[in-house]
Amino acid sequence: MPTPSPETVAAVLRHADGQLDQSRERLFDLLRIPSISAQPAHQVDCQRAAAWSRDRFAELGFRADIRPTQGHPVVVAHHDGPAGYAGPHILFYGHYDVQPVDPVELWSSPPFDPQLVDGPRGKRFVARGAVDDKGQWMMFVEALRAWHDAGGGIPARITVVLEGEEEVGSVNLEPFLKAHAGELKADLGLISDTGMWDVETPAITTRLRGMTYVEMTLKAAKRDLHSGLFGGSALNPINALTKILGDLHDADGRIRLPGFYDKVVPITNAQRAQWDSLGFDEAAFLGDIGLTTPVGERGYSALERLWARPTADINGIWGGYTGAGSKTVIAAEASAKISFRLVPNQQPEEVFAQFQRFVNDRLPPGAAASFRLFGAAPGVEVNADSPWVRAAQAALTEEYGRQAILIGSGGSIPVVTSLKTILGIDTLLMGFGLDDDQIHSPNEKFEQVCFHHGIRSHIRLLAKFAGG
Amino acid sequence: MPTPSPETVAAVLRHADGQLDQSRERLFDLLRIPSISAQPAHQVDCQRAAAWSRDRFAELGFRADIRPTQGHPVVVAHHDGPAGYAGPHILFYGHYDVQPVDPVELWSSPPFDPQLVDGPRGKRFVARGAVDDKGQWMMFVEALRAWHDAGGGIPARITVVLEGEEEVGSVNLEPFLKAHAGELKADLGLISDTGMWDVETPAITTRLRGMTYVEMTLKAAKRDLHSGLFGGSALNPINALTKILGDLHDADGRIRLPGFYDKVVPITNAQRAQWDSLGFDEAAFLGDIGLTTPVGERGYSALERLWARPTADINGIWGGYTGAGSKTVIAAEASAKISFRLVPNQQPEEVFAQFQRFVNDRLPPGAAASFRLFGAAPGVEVNADSPWVRAAQAALTEEYGRQAILIGSGGSIPVVTSLKTILGIDTLLMGFGLDDDQIHSPNEKFEQVCFHHGIRSHIRLLAKFAGG
Repeated sequence: MPTPSPETVAAVLRHADGQLDQSRERLFDLLRIPSISAQPAHQVDCQRAAAWSRDRFAELGFRADIRPTQGHPVVVAHHDGPAGYAGPHILFYGHYDVQPVDPVELWSSPPFDPQLVDGPRGKRFVARGAVDDKGQWMMFVEALRAWHDAGGGIPARITVVLEGEEEVGSVNLEPFLKAHAGELKADLGLISDTGMWDVETPAITTRLRGMTYVEMTLKAAKRDLHSGLFGGSALNPINALTKILGDLHDADGRIRLPGFYDKVVPITNAQRAQWDSLGFDEAAFLGDIGLTTPVGERGYSALERLWARPTADINGIWGGYTGAGSKTVIAAEASAKISFRLVPNQQPEEVFAQFQRFVNDRLPPGAAASFRLFGAAPGVEVNADSPWVRAAQAALTEEYGRQAILIGSGGSIPVVTSLKTILGIDTLLMGFGLDDDQIHSPNEKFEQVCFHHGIRSHIRLLAKFAGG
Repeated sequence: MPTPSPETVAAVLRHADGQLDQSRERLFDLLRIPSISAQPAHQVDCQRAAAWSRDRFAELGFRADIRPTQGHPVVVAHHDGPAGYAGPHILFYGHYDVQPVDPVELWSSPPFDPQLVDGPRGKRFVARGAVDDKGQWMMFVEALRAWHDAGGGIPARITVVLEGEEEVGSVNLEPFLKAHAGELKADLGLISDTGMWDVETPAITTRLRGMTYVEMTLKAAKRDLHSGLFGGSALNPINALTKILGDLHDADGRIRLPGFYDKVVPITNAQRAQWDSLGFDEAAFLGDIGLTTPVGERGYSALERLWARPTADINGIWGGYTGAGSKTVIAAEASAKISFRLVPNQQPEEVFAQFQRFVNDRLPPGAAASFRLFGAAPGVEVNADSPWVRAAQAALTEEYGRQAILIGSGGSIPVVTSLKTILGIDTLLMGFGLDDDQIHSPNEKFEQVCFHHGIRSHIRLLAKFAGG
């Protein structure tokens, strides 16, 4: 198949423009399914989301089916592209699961009743999963649909993998990729689960942080105790937990785990200069969330901390009496969830071991600590000098009329590492989220203008792939 | 009325012995009412418990009624005693409310379905409130009942105050006592809400710790954040909370609040010698709760720490994601409940101010802390050389055949201070709990042998009061 003509691409883009309302309505149908992977009560909803997703690919002529795993199922779909296709075989990845919605009382509308509301940048979609990740991978589906309906068919050889456990650590994805490596082998990974530089400036993400996510429980006495009768003699596991976790950072914001920084690659002067040139507005970044003073590791700019330095955050903590009023109890145990964002070259299992050592070194006599690992993924650095990155930059530059820039991300997309280690392929990360999309938070949203440009950008990118 | 004859006292005791099963069944009726004062859902149950309690005194000839407060009501009952009574007017205090029951899954039977079960010391009662405080004040009711049925009538002038908010800081009790000071004025307070030395050795408590109970919330960003996009730049309030609270104690177990120890009275050599002579078995004390190593302030014995040194315990902590699996959120806020056990001479409001200063001195930029005071009561030291303490010692020594000893308690009974400051009276603390009664914990219990001896001891004590 030759490169699609500019007229064909223009016709496909026009068709997508005319279908925008229908594209949004299809996304809203998906957003109505509360596919919260972390919560067993929503298991059936995850299955419904998988079936719904399979049907979308099937109606575009893909061979699509649902594959069981030990957890939530994976949707797999294949299309061979046009006869004689000589471009890259693309493995498109997305996830149909979403984060929990709590605290639900902070949502201005029910999280699974998607709303089209007015915002400063035009219409926006408000729902859990609007941008992470249902709205993003649905742009790819709608780009395919436009090609299918107005461009003569699906223009490239494509394999799709949609998982349902991204928000809970993708624990079953690696075994799945290994078991189906032959079927899934492609030339290039493609994922839309990242962000733009700002609403007018497209971006390709070439650096991702990894993660070690740990839940720990500290146990002391064999039962809850009265703080009057035992306070001052019996170990209080909440006191001990705060003492240990309060020691995670030193006065310079550096993380105290033994050996934690040993494998962290220093930021080069070239990187520092490039990132400085982006003119990141840290005051606005923090102002959007109601803060004024940056915290974190001393001696690094905000972008450096976000893209090239590891972090430690306590994501949850609980223990003792948390109801109304007072209860003078010394709890038998206390727990916390802690995540470490890692940079390329740090080993997540090593960090898990370092954290256990850090805790055990500080355990008071009589306390016992247990640990569960919920996620372990290394950081990623993508080769920015590949033909696929250049193709995506060209597609984005055409669409937006300005240069697409290469950025890092503070977040983690563990599947990028899995595709590299298991299938041997690099991944192109072209995403359309914005910093204020409130992913993982109440009132998650996706700008319609981003959704629209994202569909059009994928139409253009597919044309470039079709051209080989 | 002259001193009751030994034959009368013996008859009353015999009657109580024969009524033990019925006494227990009446207690069980009360234990079936889930009067959890901390939880608004149980407001009606608190009212039911108050009504039930009023009826018990009314049927013994008391003028009994229920008085409203801003919170749960107070039961007040009066009996003038026999004509010509010349002994002390006794103000008996108890509380009909109980602690919450969580974690309810650790109870071996439903907390409000009282069970009579076999234990190493014979039968025991298992229920929330079995010993704290329903079982204890019901011993006084049953002692009165035995006098009423077999001793010729109530033998002393008695006023009863039963409150329903002891477990939530007794916030409405002081205003109530002030408003009714004329009506409630008596010669002596009497409370059964403390413990024995051991199951064979009765005790009178002459020292109580006070308490400052604080709930604090730390707020950072105006919404929950994604830890990948904001981790390393945005303040994490759980990180900050653990850092602040982890700093509460120094390496010697001393509390770091500025000025906290300024008013703590040092332990005298005489006290130290007396307490040492009790032969407290710290290993057994800790072994009962599954611990081996004492924690707490260096340089003090367990009894000294418990009776004469202040403590700081985090009673509850919560923030962020606490559900199943992982969620990479940076919470907008985090909270904790912290209680300080105080010794006589420390001022609870000063400690509250010291704690706020301690937190505010450590607040990172961008964080805001708010505080709520749920309880503030000073420690108490009762004059051990009073005729009432001697009368109680005599009654207990007769009942148990061994000397009753004077002890301290690590717990707090704020009403003792209120009776002193508002009504100007001292309080006699004669209680029958044991260290392993699991008050405030799952499977709270009360030994039947303690309940039985407690009824009999109160019968004897009333005889001594009747004798003037």
